[in-house]
Amino acid sequence: MINKKLLIVSGTHGNEVNPIMAVDKFRNLISASQNKHFEFILGNPLACQKGLRYLDIDLNRSFDLEKYNLNKDLYEIQRAQELVKKYGPTSSKECQIVLDLHTTTSCMGTSIVQYGRRKKDFYLAAILQSKFGLPIYLHEQDSQQNGFLVEAWPCGLVIEIGPVAQNHYDPIIVERFLIILNFLEDLLDGVANDNFLLPDEMIVFVHQGSIDYPRDKDGNINSLIHPDRVMKDWIEIKNGDPLFLDEFNKNINYLSQDNVYPVFIGEAAYKEKKIAMSFTKKVKITCSKDWIKEF
Amino acid sequence: MINKKLLIVSGTHGNEVNPIMAVDKFRNLISASQNKHFEFILGNPLACQKGLRYLDIDLNRSFDLEKYNLNKDLYEIQRAQELVKKYGPTSSKECQIVLDLHTTTSCMGTSIVQYGRRKKDFYLAAILQSKFGLPIYLHEQDSQQNGFLVEAWPCGLVIEIGPVAQNHYDPIIVERFLIILNFLEDLLDGVANDNFLLPDEMIVFVHQGSIDYPRDKDGNINSLIHPDRVMKDWIEIKNGDPLFLDEFNKNINYLSQDNVYPVFIGEAAYKEKKIAMSFTKKVKITCSKDWIKEF
Repeated sequence: MINKKLLIVSGTHGNEVNPIMAVDKFRNLISASQNKHFEFILGNPLACQKGLRYLDIDLNRSFDLEKYNLNKDLYEIQRAQELVKKYGPTSSKECQIVLDLHTTTSCMGTSIVQYGRRKKDFYLAAILQSKFGLPIYLHEQDSQQNGFLVEAWPCGLVIEIGPVAQNHYDPIIVERFLIILNFLEDLLDGVANDNFLLPDEMIVFVHQGSIDYPRDKDGNINSLIHPDRVMKDWIEIKNGDPLFLDEFNKNINYLSQDNVYPVFIGEAAYKEKKIAMSFTKKVKITCSKDWIKEF
Repeated sequence: MINKKLLIVSGTHGNEVNPIMAVDKFRNLISASQNKHFEFILGNPLACQKGLRYLDIDLNRSFDLEKYNLNKDLYEIQRAQELVKKYGPTSSKECQIVLDLHTTTSCMGTSIVQYGRRKKDFYLAAILQSKFGLPIYLHEQDSQQNGFLVEAWPCGLVIEIGPVAQNHYDPIIVERFLIILNFLEDLLDGVANDNFLLPDEMIVFVHQGSIDYPRDKDGNINSLIHPDRVMKDWIEIKNGDPLFLDEFNKNINYLSQDNVYPVFIGEAAYKEKKIAMSFTKKVKITCSKDWIKEF
């Protein structure tokens, strides 16, 4: 583990400016000896210049061979290949782990997004949860959303912090990223020396699906997240709870006996993906010592 | 006054979605008799479609004849002329008053922006302050920032509400706009019947100038608003107070005996205008009965 390299990606979405600032600051503040554990890269430099999420297509959905074969001319598709070539397996700057730093306009707090059930990811997520108590959103089995950056490396997680507006610098959000980044050196040294014991259990919020906003016949959004539901990411929705408030101030309620926990409530960038929020199930997972060996 | 028409503009910036939703909702909820006082228009429909602040140039700096003569090909310059032609003096749908609805990523609360010292604007602002206690930012004498929409009508104010992310729907922000919009009918009827007495005095925050973020030699921002200063719009800055936090975690302090009140702290869209915040002076103004006659 001690020889493993960690790729820190910021600016995968060009309008999420706080991770970029956090990485700049981290690089200013760490010593050269710490720096040897890390590679740093700006995910989407052209989008960053323009303050846009992306130019042609969402870079964080572009790490997908099928999409690559269909859209070779798109900037982000090319950029995804370039990043894998430069920092992926068998490259000269090979990194075995990647952390992709994101912000959200929804009230997710400091959180982890894990894609699928790779043992290495579980191990890393369990350590971060055990250290900081961070909630973990386990994204899986969603045919509409794939090609995430971290899936192109053998191990990788997204750190997602919000709420913060796109293109809006917030020193408190920057500080939260720095807390995670500062911990990573300890992590890289500590895991090698077996200093990070796995907890017995971890809690993950497992993706079940997403719902769109109610829309009119022309496809325009005509109901908003209910005022009782905004800023309630990670908080259980029960049968009959208000979900949306329509254009005539009527409630649209959640109608199901199947209780769920919403995440990414009202995220601005997900309107185009027709996602008003995603639903998860809260699941307890027994941690396995096998994860350490895999790591 | 009873015959005066009020133009309500939303979407002057295409990524400020909550005013647009508030206007749609207001139009659904009001009766036809109320509707006769109002005209409604989407300021920048193309930018709204794309979720961008603007396409070529900030529409809310484009109501300026000098700019028009220099940049006739730009979409927003043409759009500004179109709006004045359609709703300005001598047009068939002439409106005498305009309210331009905006949101900000900074912590301005519900606030009024007034441009210059027109008596009609003072009267309208004084009534709104007296009714709701809203703070008023009096913007004037800034050669870098001109051509604002409301200046193209004989009377007009901006309603500015934040914090909220661009392109992020927030039902609570929508509700705040609706409170203002619902009051306007009373206002139009009431002013005619002399039901709205002017207060004796009003408080305005008078623009003094703006400061940029500290930047490195390449022009990149390298210091953020100080954590003690974020979300402190309208709150006095005194000599020695921390203003920015630099890349090495050193404070950059405000050094002047001249106390000021900051507004638009960290507004995302103002980075490109090289504005980290604007400074104002808090001034008490005696209201004049002449304003009513002018109105």
